Amino acid sequence: MISREKHDRMANAIRFLSIDAVEKAQSGHPGLPMGAADIATVLFTRFMKHDPKNPYWPDRDRFVLSAGHGSMLLYSLLYLLGYEDITLEEIKNFRQLGSRTAGHPEYGHAAGIETTTGPLGQGFANAVGMAIAERLLNARFGDQLVNHYTYALVGDGCLMEGISQEALTLAGHLKLNKLIVLFDDNRISIDGPVSLADSTDQCARFAASGWNTMHADGHDPEAIAAAIEAARQSDRPTFIAFRTTIGRGAPTKAGTAKAHGSPLGADEIAKTREALGWDAAPFVIPSDILDDWRLAGLRSAKERVAWEKRLAESDGTVRAEFERRMRGDLPEALPSVIAEYKKKIAKENPKVATRNASEMALEVINDCLTETIGGSADLTGSNNTKTSQTASVTPDDFTGRYIHYGIREHAMAAAMNGIALHGGLIPYGGTFLAFSDYARPAMRLASLMGIRSIFVMTHDSIGLGEDGPTHQPVEHLAALRAIPNHLVFRPADATETAECWQLALESRKAPSTLALTRQKLEPVRTEFEEDNLCARGAYELLPASDEAKVTIFASGSEVEIAVKARAMLEERGHPTRVVSVPCFELFEQQDQDYQQAIIGSAPVRIAIEAGIRQGWDRFIGTDGLFIGMSGFGASAPAAALYKHFGITAEAAVEAAEARLRATR
Amino acid sequence: MISREKHDRMANAIRFLSIDAVEKAQSGHPGLPMGAADIATVLFTRFMKHDPKNPYWPDRDRFVLSAGHGSMLLYSLLYLLGYEDITLEEIKNFRQLGSRTAGHPEYGHAAGIETTTGPLGQGFANAVGMAIAERLLNARFGDQLVNHYTYALVGDGCLMEGISQEALTLAGHLKLNKLIVLFDDNRISIDGPVSLADSTDQCARFAASGWNTMHADGHDPEAIAAAIEAARQSDRPTFIAFRTTIGRGAPTKAGTAKAHGSPLGADEIAKTREALGWDAAPFVIPSDILDDWRLAGLRSAKERVAWEKRLAESDGTVRAEFERRMRGDLPEALPSVIAEYKKKIAKENPKVATRNASEMALEVINDCLTETIGGSADLTGSNNTKTSQTASVTPDDFTGRYIHYGIREHAMAAAMNGIALHGGLIPYGGTFLAFSDYARPAMRLASLMGIRSIFVMTHDSIGLGEDGPTHQPVEHLAALRAIPNHLVFRPADATETAECWQLALESRKAPSTLALTRQKLEPVRTEFEEDNLCARGAYELLPASDEAKVTIFASGSEVEIAVKARAMLEERGHPTRVVSVPCFELFEQQDQDYQQAIIGSAPVRIAIEAGIRQGWDRFIGTDGLFIGMSGFGASAPAAALYKHFGITAEAAVEAAEARLRATR
Repeated sequence: MISREKHDRMANAIRFLSIDAVEKAQSGHPGLPMGAADIATVLFTRFMKHDPKNPYWPDRDRFVLSAGHGSMLLYSLLYLLGYEDITLEEIKNFRQLGSRTAGHPEYGHAAGIETTTGPLGQGFANAVGMAIAERLLNARFGDQLVNHYTYALVGDGCLMEGISQEALTLAGHLKLNKLIVLFDDNRISIDGPVSLADSTDQCARFAASGWNTMHADGHDPEAIAAAIEAARQSDRPTFIAFRTTIGRGAPTKAGTAKAHGSPLGADEIAKTREALGWDAAPFVIPSDILDDWRLAGLRSAKERVAWEKRLAESDGTVRAEFERRMRGDLPEALPSVIAEYKKKIAKENPKVATRNASEMALEVINDCLTETIGGSADLTGSNNTKTSQTASVTPDDFTGRYIHYGIREHAMAAAMNGIALHGGLIPYGGTFLAFSDYARPAMRLASLMGIRSIFVMTHDSIGLGEDGPTHQPVEHLAALRAIPNHLVFRPADATETAECWQLALESRKAPSTLALTRQKLEPVRTEFEEDNLCARGAYELLPASDEAKVTIFASGSEVEIAVKARAMLEERGHPTRVVSVPCFELFEQQDQDYQQAIIGSAPVRIAIEAGIRQGWDRFIGTDGLFIGMSGFGASAPAAALYKHFGITAEAAVEAAEARLRATR
Repeated sequence: MISREKHDRMANAIRFLSIDAVEKAQSGHPGLPMGAADIATVLFTRFMKHDPKNPYWPDRDRFVLSAGHGSMLLYSLLYLLGYEDITLEEIKNFRQLGSRTAGHPEYGHAAGIETTTGPLGQGFANAVGMAIAERLLNARFGDQLVNHYTYALVGDGCLMEGISQEALTLAGHLKLNKLIVLFDDNRISIDGPVSLADSTDQCARFAASGWNTMHADGHDPEAIAAAIEAARQSDRPTFIAFRTTIGRGAPTKAGTAKAHGSPLGADEIAKTREALGWDAAPFVIPSDILDDWRLAGLRSAKERVAWEKRLAESDGTVRAEFERRMRGDLPEALPSVIAEYKKKIAKENPKVATRNASEMALEVINDCLTETIGGSADLTGSNNTKTSQTASVTPDDFTGRYIHYGIREHAMAAAMNGIALHGGLIPYGGTFLAFSDYARPAMRLASLMGIRSIFVMTHDSIGLGEDGPTHQPVEHLAALRAIPNHLVFRPADATETAECWQLALESRKAPSTLALTRQKLEPVRTEFEEDNLCARGAYELLPASDEAKVTIFASGSEVEIAVKARAMLEERGHPTRVVSVPCFELFEQQDQDYQQAIIGSAPVRIAIEAGIRQGWDRFIGTDGLFIGMSGFGASAPAAALYKHFGITAEAAVEAAEARLRATR
């Protein structure tokens, strides 16, 4: 039992670390840490299962600060609880270059930061993914190894963002009863009172999707504890609206937008110290209070030891599998499995769409990798993401390996991030490439965090045909290639698709997007090669018969056009090589010599891609020829569109010959 | 009164036009038109105020088919009601190249298509925007000129998308009582029953945000009519969940996912004809039924005439203003107002952030243009989007000119599109540039439709400082420039900001994004120029003192760095010119000679932009020097970040001199 006085002093430690750090940085958000300090104190002193000395303990409870601007709440907690990464020095360096205490929590900066938050609503959806991961792993490894809660602290901003609706409806549907969402209901947004822009009864909204909901006083520790305790007993996910005061304790700014995102100022801080009876100097935590916090940090140590014992005593195979998965290592067999599959493909040379080739590759991969978790945003049959191994997950059965994410691209991507962050699983999920725009904020965060989320984006060009320009990606390849640390693969046939899948799986520190066709393609790689040729991002698919006069660069569905154009050009006496470019990013990682060799010195360079030119100058130069799109697509059968937009071998040959004449 | 028999036959006309068109195209979605035919028939025969012969009548009711894949429902209606753009020939050419009857409804293809839909949820949010526009214009021009309903037909897909939550909470908050949402509650999605992925009580969800909600049988015309009638009387927006059967009438496929998105097939079609007692040949509508429909098309003609009379009798000034606004013409005074303002700026040379410069320009613009409607996604004080003229719109008062969109970037952008589509208003709305990702699907649709939505995106680089990489755009300029028909402006100072604002307002067929700084900038244009120099996209800001050895291209906040670097290079004896590049897209529209002159022939070309290189090769060539970002940003004060990432005049000078040495 923690006395009210002790609780208050512990909560005030969070408040003053936050106030002082923001003041020192002259930048940051004191309002949330001050308002949510009581909730956080109760959660971490009475409920959270975690061990600051073993922060990566797989069965720890996850805590996600979805309202990431309140980062000082998290940093204060981590410091107070004894996480070694967050020292007092780091707190003092809040928001400074090179510090672990960035403006918003950055995954990878310090243990205890479970995900990167700040873009609102993302953390909530990550938490849904973590809670899904927990249930999936629980279904595989049992209560003795995986059985933990996921807590997310959200603000009104998180709840106004559309992604929160996608996330909550998915969680409600799946009955994620170990997910507990703590709503910091302070009724203040940046523009002023939330009532300027919203009149939603949040509990009613969550209840409409099957959540257990509660209201509680967010400053009464016993009320907070009772609510969390009740939530833990629920058979459904729980949403607790904690009525709080933003900037709690600041005499003139509390309860107003002024407390949200600016330093309180010396005067207000002095008065807050007075009001809360806190006489310690800035950044000083009285030793008795720090002791209480450090003791709280030890609360799960015994549980962690018991868990380790259970793991040690598990069946050897199970344990090895669990540990391999949690490390994120792939099964050793994968490369040979892929090689065998490529051998088979080279014999059969199937003429398939790359989305079908992806399904074929996944059929092999999902057999080898038990940790893949598939899914689609209601386009399963179009994305070809479901294989024979992946039974659907249902609210009552998490032994499956396939999630019907619903028409929720954004929450799908963010939940996949949560699954990847949880560990033990590799998520992949599909939608149409054009709708990557809906998922983009989460795809960006996957890149920033450097995690293994794999986005399967089919219908990757005008080649999808009749659905028309709303569904036809034109700028999406360029826009995704623009995101740093994001591998965008666009394979040309079944062999390249298998290779790209392997690379995506092996990419532990960058997410991947596979851009796949709706339409059938001719195989361009007909001979078996042990090596993964896609690994270098671009490679010479076909040499010129003599010193090259023309080099054609192409990706995906346009490689077959390049091959055809080459045949025509060769026939007309123009030695022509074809370079397949499945991944710009991997090409950029090659050494200069390789890059130069691939770009070559043919006087005419052409790129063919059924998207915009942006980015291709890297290969063809600003005076290179580009066969692709310069505006939006249209609604018509695919073949008619390729012809209409002039993305044909004939067009490439004509352009090349005109240029050859001009340069002669 | 329409008899049940007559109703059924009229509804079946929609069903069979849809069935036959999809079958002929061998592509498309028969399920929705068949399932929603009864709702549409009741709406258009008993309620819709519109005039097929005067389809642009400003006070018409708006009908938005948010579930755009059901496009044949809309095309059937337009043909049957007598809209001249949609002939039977067009119906037969469904989904073919050049037809008006694209796979999804495309704004601009035919009168009666109020917006482009297909990406789910967008139409719903457009409808919210239209309903906002109606209330805003009603508050200005009164019931006699503006007083109409907005109807949106939505499917479960629209409702699962997060944007729907943003849109409905905004509409509920604003009490948009003339907005009526018709939910085609067929409980089928592409993967199968909706229950695979969702368990939401949609009425409860809408009610939680203040909507009037109802359930009704979507195949009982009187129940449908009663529900719509009740909705029209509500003081709140209404959501009607119409229980329907997808593919209604198809004996084996109705009520299943098989009816959703594929042709029914000859056999099923024959059986459907039998089941519904429809013996007309494909594409043949019995003349009595067509007559009934054409008669329904005349139902508002009298009302339209009366409205025109009221307009004609209005006060002359009011009428002229109303007509100007509805034409989308700007006040003639605008250019001189901007010129006067530029003159003032040239005298004062304020050192301000471009976000502040934007507010200063808007202060002038909003005085001149009464039709601008500002707003922000809860970043009003940061986006500087509110001026002295723009009082806040509240649920009870639409005389204001500023919308607190809440933390809802996506619905803001889509509602802005709806406002622009409605006509009579020019919407602009703000958020941080990094969060353009949240709004991107709607921004893309603005571009595809070619409408005047103006996105004010502040905090446009690492220059925002401490908030860190989640909030720092790096790839966003490139990603937005990638969208066809989208003007991305990045002005360098107050003068350029005013010029870019003018260009954005004058761009009637393309939306604009203004990328603006958080940090203060030195003015780079200190002399008054009558001409809008930004209009050509890029222009020589400073010439070289002699034949140029170096050209520095830069945009926005980096122009001042370019100017500084030029001074240093000139001092070291390297004649250097500076080209300001406020808008790539406008530059591409210039003639070749201009483009070549701007790019110039200096042996060393450098671009400076605090974003990624992608796209800049157009100016500097693939061997050009780029000073900018190659990965994500970091959390620190802005000045420290510019130094850390080497975006400085010193770095530019060093790079230029190294290259000059190498090329000597």
